[in-house]
Amino acid sequence: MIIVLRPGTTAQQIKHIEKKLTERGVAVHISKGTERTIIGAIGDDRVLAEMPLSSMPGVENVMPILKPYKLVSREFRKENSIIKVGKEKIGGKKIAVMAGPCAVEGRKRLLAVGDEVKKAGANFIRGGAFKPRTSPYAFQGLGEEGLKYLAECRERTGMPVVTELMDPRDTDLVVQYADVIQIGARNMANFRLLKEVGLTRTPILLKRGLAATIKEFLMSAEYIMSQGNHNVIFCERGIRTFETYTRNTLDLSAVPILKKESHLPVVVDPSHGVGIREFVAPMAMAAVACGADGLMVEVHQKPEEAFSDGDQSLKPNAFAQMMSDLKAIAKVVGRTI
Amino acid sequence: MIIVLRPGTTAQQIKHIEKKLTERGVAVHISKGTERTIIGAIGDDRVLAEMPLSSMPGVENVMPILKPYKLVSREFRKENSIIKVGKEKIGGKKIAVMAGPCAVEGRKRLLAVGDEVKKAGANFIRGGAFKPRTSPYAFQGLGEEGLKYLAECRERTGMPVVTELMDPRDTDLVVQYADVIQIGARNMANFRLLKEVGLTRTPILLKRGLAATIKEFLMSAEYIMSQGNHNVIFCERGIRTFETYTRNTLDLSAVPILKKESHLPVVVDPSHGVGIREFVAPMAMAAVACGADGLMVEVHQKPEEAFSDGDQSLKPNAFAQMMSDLKAIAKVVGRTI
Amino acid sequence: MIIVLRPGTTAQQIKHIEKKLTERGVAVHISKGTERTIIGAIGDDRVLAEMPLSSMPGVENVMPILKPYKLVSREFRKENSIIKVGKEKIGGKKIAVMAGPCAVEGRKRLLAVGDEVKKAGANFIRGGAFKPRTSPYAFQGLGEEGLKYLAECRERTGMPVVTELMDPRDTDLVVQYADVIQIGARNMANFRLLKEVGLTRTPILLKRGLAATIKEFLMSAEYIMSQGNHNVIFCERGIRTFETYTRNTLDLSAVPILKKESHLPVVVDPSHGVGIREFVAPMAMAAVACGADGLMVEVHQKPEEAFSDGDQSLKPNAFAQMMSDLKAIAKVVGRTI
Amino acid sequence: MIIVLRPGTTAQQIKHIEKKLTERGVAVHISKGTERTIIGAIGDDRVLAEMPLSSMPGVENVMPILKPYKLVSREFRKENSIIKVGKEKIGGKKIAVMAGPCAVEGRKRLLAVGDEVKKAGANFIRGGAFKPRTSPYAFQGLGEEGLKYLAECRERTGMPVVTELMDPRDTDLVVQYADVIQIGARNMANFRLLKEVGLTRTPILLKRGLAATIKEFLMSAEYIMSQGNHNVIFCERGIRTFETYTRNTLDLSAVPILKKESHLPVVVDPSHGVGIREFVAPMAMAAVACGADGLMVEVHQKPEEAFSDGDQSLKPNAFAQMMSDLKAIAKVVGRTI
Repeated sequence: MIIVLRPGTTAQQIKHIEKKLTERGVAVHISKGTERTIIGAIGDDRVLAEMPLSSMPGVENVMPILKPYKLVSREFRKENSIIKVGKEKIGGKKIAVMAGPCAVEGRKRLLAVGDEVKKAGANFIRGGAFKPRTSPYAFQGLGEEGLKYLAECRERTGMPVVTELMDPRDTDLVVQYADVIQIGARNMANFRLLKEVGLTRTPILLKRGLAATIKEFLMSAEYIMSQGNHNVIFCERGIRTFETYTRNTLDLSAVPILKKESHLPVVVDPSHGVGIREFVAPMAMAAVACGADGLMVEVHQKPEEAFSDGDQSLKPNAFAQMMSDLKAIAKVVGRTI
Repeated sequence: MIIVLRPGTTAQQIKHIEKKLTERGVAVHISKGTERTIIGAIGDDRVLAEMPLSSMPGVENVMPILKPYKLVSREFRKENSIIKVGKEKIGGKKIAVMAGPCAVEGRKRLLAVGDEVKKAGANFIRGGAFKPRTSPYAFQGLGEEGLKYLAECRERTGMPVVTELMDPRDTDLVVQYADVIQIGARNMANFRLLKEVGLTRTPILLKRGLAATIKEFLMSAEYIMSQGNHNVIFCERGIRTFETYTRNTLDLSAVPILKKESHLPVVVDPSHGVGIREFVAPMAMAAVACGADGLMVEVHQKPEEAFSDGDQSLKPNAFAQMMSDLKAIAKVVGRTI
Repeated sequence: MIIVLRPGTTAQQIKHIEKKLTERGVAVHISKGTERTIIGAIGDDRVLAEMPLSSMPGVENVMPILKPYKLVSREFRKENSIIKVGKEKIGGKKIAVMAGPCAVEGRKRLLAVGDEVKKAGANFIRGGAFKPRTSPYAFQGLGEEGLKYLAECRERTGMPVVTELMDPRDTDLVVQYADVIQIGARNMANFRLLKEVGLTRTPILLKRGLAATIKEFLMSAEYIMSQGNHNVIFCERGIRTFETYTRNTLDLSAVPILKKESHLPVVVDPSHGVGIREFVAPMAMAAVACGADGLMVEVHQKPEEAFSDGDQSLKPNAFAQMMSDLKAIAKVVGRTI
Repeated sequence: MIIVLRPGTTAQQIKHIEKKLTERGVAVHISKGTERTIIGAIGDDRVLAEMPLSSMPGVENVMPILKPYKLVSREFRKENSIIKVGKEKIGGKKIAVMAGPCAVEGRKRLLAVGDEVKKAGANFIRGGAFKPRTSPYAFQGLGEEGLKYLAECRERTGMPVVTELMDPRDTDLVVQYADVIQIGARNMANFRLLKEVGLTRTPILLKRGLAATIKEFLMSAEYIMSQGNHNVIFCERGIRTFETYTRNTLDLSAVPILKKESHLPVVVDPSHGVGIREFVAPMAMAAVACGADGLMVEVHQKPEEAFSDGDQSLKPNAFAQMMSDLKAIAKVVGRTI
């Protein structure tokens, strides 16, 4: 930690700060410059971060040196983590493709779309049984009934199930059915929910919050890992900016950055990232080209009848076309799909 | 709902859209312009919002006419809602001042700061027993022990207690101790938690999410009200923007806008809004000047020893000075403090 | 400047960095911590900022200690700068009120609105003769004709003229008519224009760019001052965020922050800040309450006929009412209006 | 244009609005719904946009139907525009690669780097002779001397020159040397400069502003085209968001969106988009994968000695490696490089 002092800070104030730091077992180096004096506090930044150093008299600015995350970091683990899910893997050579409807809307529809995406090459079925909706009057999901249909789809197609958990009270229920638990963007900083899923051993697909920095995204993964569950997968799904043409602004630079900072796999959700059907495929192409380990894509047979997110869902034939185009891109970057 | 069609939409496509709309009991008006044809769908926009109209062939754009919220709106209730909390009121002539530490750190400290803020004119004690922290390694709050100290402070000072609820599983516990339940910014779109507190009758202080539009903020209040709890108080606490000088960007224009759109009271939290001690008082002044019904302010006797948010906490004497300055501003806008 | 090294940086790499720094006359201190080695480079950060230190092998991160601005800073000049404009002053006890139409639309209209705002207590007439418009097909201003009407208004009312300069080629022309030259938000980083007006001695009202941080805002003022013109006035007019209810998000915290970081006066433009007529007055109240030295307000007699910005223009009677309300707020904060 | 009226609007107010509209030659349709009355104004939205309709008594909201841009739009011209620059083309099958230093720093350095990028496959040399710098104390470019070196590089390598114009007064000078004039991000809304280059016939590379929506980006191109210069190339170079890890947030979704909305070519600048050397190549890969017509990349032989943007400049060998990787991606999407 570097502590910059205001001009005119007294010797007594410096002594005071020094004392507070050494009390916590931190080594202190003081450098006097022509315009500012700075204190180098050499110790665990994670401990120092807890001290309100900026509040001490004479302090102008405090700058951390070390990163606040540990388990999640590339320094902690050099090689890529590969998350095993049944017979599938996320983070290896093969691109994981999670496809299916936004929400599970009924048994027949789900099984039909499951068959379609399987045929086109998807290796995970996705679908929400619990839906976070902006309006209390909107469709909120089928609950356990939806989970059962997902399980039936898995049995039929062999594809593991990715589904969202919104409430810590549903954890036991969802764990029974899900192969990968999705934590939605709106819950990325729902720390109690993160701890709860950290206690399970089910792989967690953690979506980036609408206003979450990459650093906060890493910290949320650290929450899960700190409870013992090391099976975490990042999902970039767009952030909120001033641009209104798209639903969100898909931040693809997060892909190589997360791969550098962390050993965990990174999946991209172009459906939420842009929110407009015709731009999903180009963004999926770009995601694979810059190193994504997987894709999460909404597919619906009749988007115009979808209960939610119809505008961003691909029809099965468009999805199949996209999968075919992705094969060539994957090959170029040394992956398969 | 206005539906704008692409140039070249066929008569058959228009028929198809018309059919889908009339099936839902919606009246349809078609206007052909020189460059675009538009369809006016006259019905409940809340029903129409559920239809993925943009996905229908030929549709270029869909524009809602009606607002998606109802119970929360000024149209639903013309006069200001005044929320009663024990002997105090929020939303009336008197500005509600909620003051206290960020987190309850111990019995002695809390009671002492409670006495100080009471003396300076605060009428609510605030303090977190459950703390949402970005780092899993940071202080997470005292839990029930903290709630007990808050209750003791209430007994001693007569000030009702405002405290945060983070997890639906803690609702019964927190309801026992809290006079006002705070839903934090990170949980503004935690819809299951909103529903849960909607089932209680305890007043809810709903903080604006970091990336929440005013419309979404209103919708989150609608979630709570739709469950039967009409005692909702908005709290503007800053949004996330590109500016890094301040912790957040305090959006004071939200105050008159929320007062116009809704009948519910609006409180401002300048401590989180700016995140820097010396700018808390000017922002509190501005908040009252533009019509806020209350303030939420972090006060700590030794900010440099605070477990969290020390950098934005006022010392008791600075808080007392601010309260004295606020009296004059309140008077100018026809309020008391 | 603090230079943080990556783990595993070699002694040779450190030597290399040390050499590059000492070549520039910078003193170097090296501290080895348990996890990182850091180099303190003690010298002029303005020189160091020019060196691409992050590009040197082994460097993880570079953190400046000193501020990049000088003339504009409170350290350079302790007392408030008061800018004299004819018989008026900006930055003193009296709040400067600049009022008038968005654009000068015609002689008669301008003189009439000038009389009205003067009567209501404004002390500057504002109006654009050159208008930056998003559409090339929109009204672009009357040019010199508009400047002449402004000069006539000044003669008639005694109010100095505030008007925008968009193009360095118009400087000589605008200097002839303007008492204060406005640099619009879209030109805050038009560095050639900043230099040009820095060569004049006319006071400059510098508007904050839509995406400009406070630091960049200060740097733009530094551009002007570095050319010799020290008569700079900041104007906070809202920044662009994800919120779409308002035209911009008015960042009132910029007022006390700029007053702390700089000695220059700060004016607020609530008209552009919110973009909606009915919220202009509450934001003006808030601006004065948190320490603004002035206000810039759009007033139009028939907003529904305005050539631009009609939706945010006050009618003269609403402006007069606002001025009357502001008097009481100004008094509370020790100012007059 | 759709005009939504407030509940309780009087018949007289509706008459008034109707009159104002018909005076402008606009056909009016009125629909009365259960909760709102709406007016459909069928005419040129570009004329209607000039009327401050929201200011008319009774109006709640105004929604445009038509797009404000014309010449730039895909409706105006169905097929892709291909911009010819000497023997090169931008917008055709071959990806245009513009590479070189951020700023021209000297003759020898420029010629050397020009040779290198040419060898690696670049087909345009880029370099700034006039540099927009945040600090007035930073290197501001070599001016005409820099332009001469660029011309010399062109003669030597055959690569056309892309260089920035910042000031309308330099237009004649820059036109003499440049094959493509770059308008920088900070000048995207410098409308006088846009008009000026609209009067030339030199191709214009228009960079997206830091806070510019895609719609505003299109409107700025419309400014140039409205003056007669139809040779406009879009350049996505990242927008400003809350994320601080990267210099900007590269919005790659803008590529397919601009290609859909407009017939003009789209180039991506990954160097400014991320601002960190090691993430330039993955973003370049992604850009080509999602349909970019070109790339603009900063290359410097000794980034650690660069006068500006050293941290985001590739070394020649890294650039050559990237070009080789891009070949395969280009092929997949039916392009060459």
